[in-house]
Amino acid sequence: MPKVELDRLTPSNRTGYPPPFHQPVAGRWQRAVGQAAGLTALGAREVTLDPGAWSSQRHWHEGEDELLVMLAGEAVLIEDEGETPVRAGDIVAWAAGVRNGHHLVNRGDAPCRFLCVSAGSDAGGGYSDIDMMFTPAGDYVKDGTPYAKSRAAP
Amino acid sequence: MPKVELDRLTPSNRTGYPPPFHQPVAGRWQRAVGQAAGLTALGAREVTLDPGAWSSQRHWHEGEDELLVMLAGEAVLIEDEGETPVRAGDIVAWAAGVRNGHHLVNRGDAPCRFLCVSAGSDAGGGYSDIDMMFTPAGDYVKDGTPYAKSRAAP
Repeated sequence: MPKVELDRLTPSNRTGYPPPFHQPVAGRWQRAVGQAAGLTALGAREVTLDPGAWSSQRHWHEGEDELLVMLAGEAVLIEDEGETPVRAGDIVAWAAGVRNGHHLVNRGDAPCRFLCVSAGSDAGGGYSDIDMMFTPAGDYVKDGTPYAKSRAAP
Repeated sequence: MPKVELDRLTPSNRTGYPPPFHQPVAGRWQRAVGQAAGLTALGAREVTLDPGAWSSQRHWHEGEDELLVMLAGEAVLIEDEGETPVRAGDIVAWAAGVRNGHHLVNRGDAPCRFLCVSAGSDAGGGYSDIDMMFTPAGDYVKDGTPYAKSRAAP
């Protein structure tokens, strides 16, 4: 039966971000929906952001499309142009290769919860606000120096 | 700004199903979310099913993962094993190549609304309840005879 039993999936706040970039995502709890369902081409995670938590460092993907739908609560989407509220029912999508970093920040007093899906090729990407870039092989300072800790998928 | 402005997208009940298989999806209204957002690797449609409408003929994809999240209302998921209610907030996923046909039927008195996403390769697939199969080139009777009307993507 393909209905995803969310209650059986353990949320994880694991991140591969090297310090200190891991700190803002400590309150991001992810459940690996796509993996649980045996999906291979479509990535899918259910994400809860505690108050104050970020969805990620502000980033873009060179080869992957991303889309999220807010299921409950509210967060603020931050991009180059500024801020946009994202409320329950809102759908937000980012096409591969558009170098306008995005992330969501929960500035409210209650958790918010969304489903995030992605597809495409793992061709790395960039971060808008920090001196880091990512490739399939790991995280690098923008001058090309590898970070000591290799990136682990959440 | 990547927030999808659903109100600006025109719902379509177009289908490429040849008669009489088009009839049960006449009350299926789709908005092309992924296309509007410029996505190329990730398919995304917001779908409203009027009372009585089906999401599709009961089918599977050989090369594409599919996932939906019910946003409002309720429908019944039908597969080989039987029926499962799908309610607002439920997530349902189908891995590519699993030959267990699925579709949703709205048996209620009110519309239901879901987001459906997909990714993978267009390798065709099959239908569980009707004498039809689909390939990237169109629809065929299971004996290999092409249907007169070629399949058009909704």
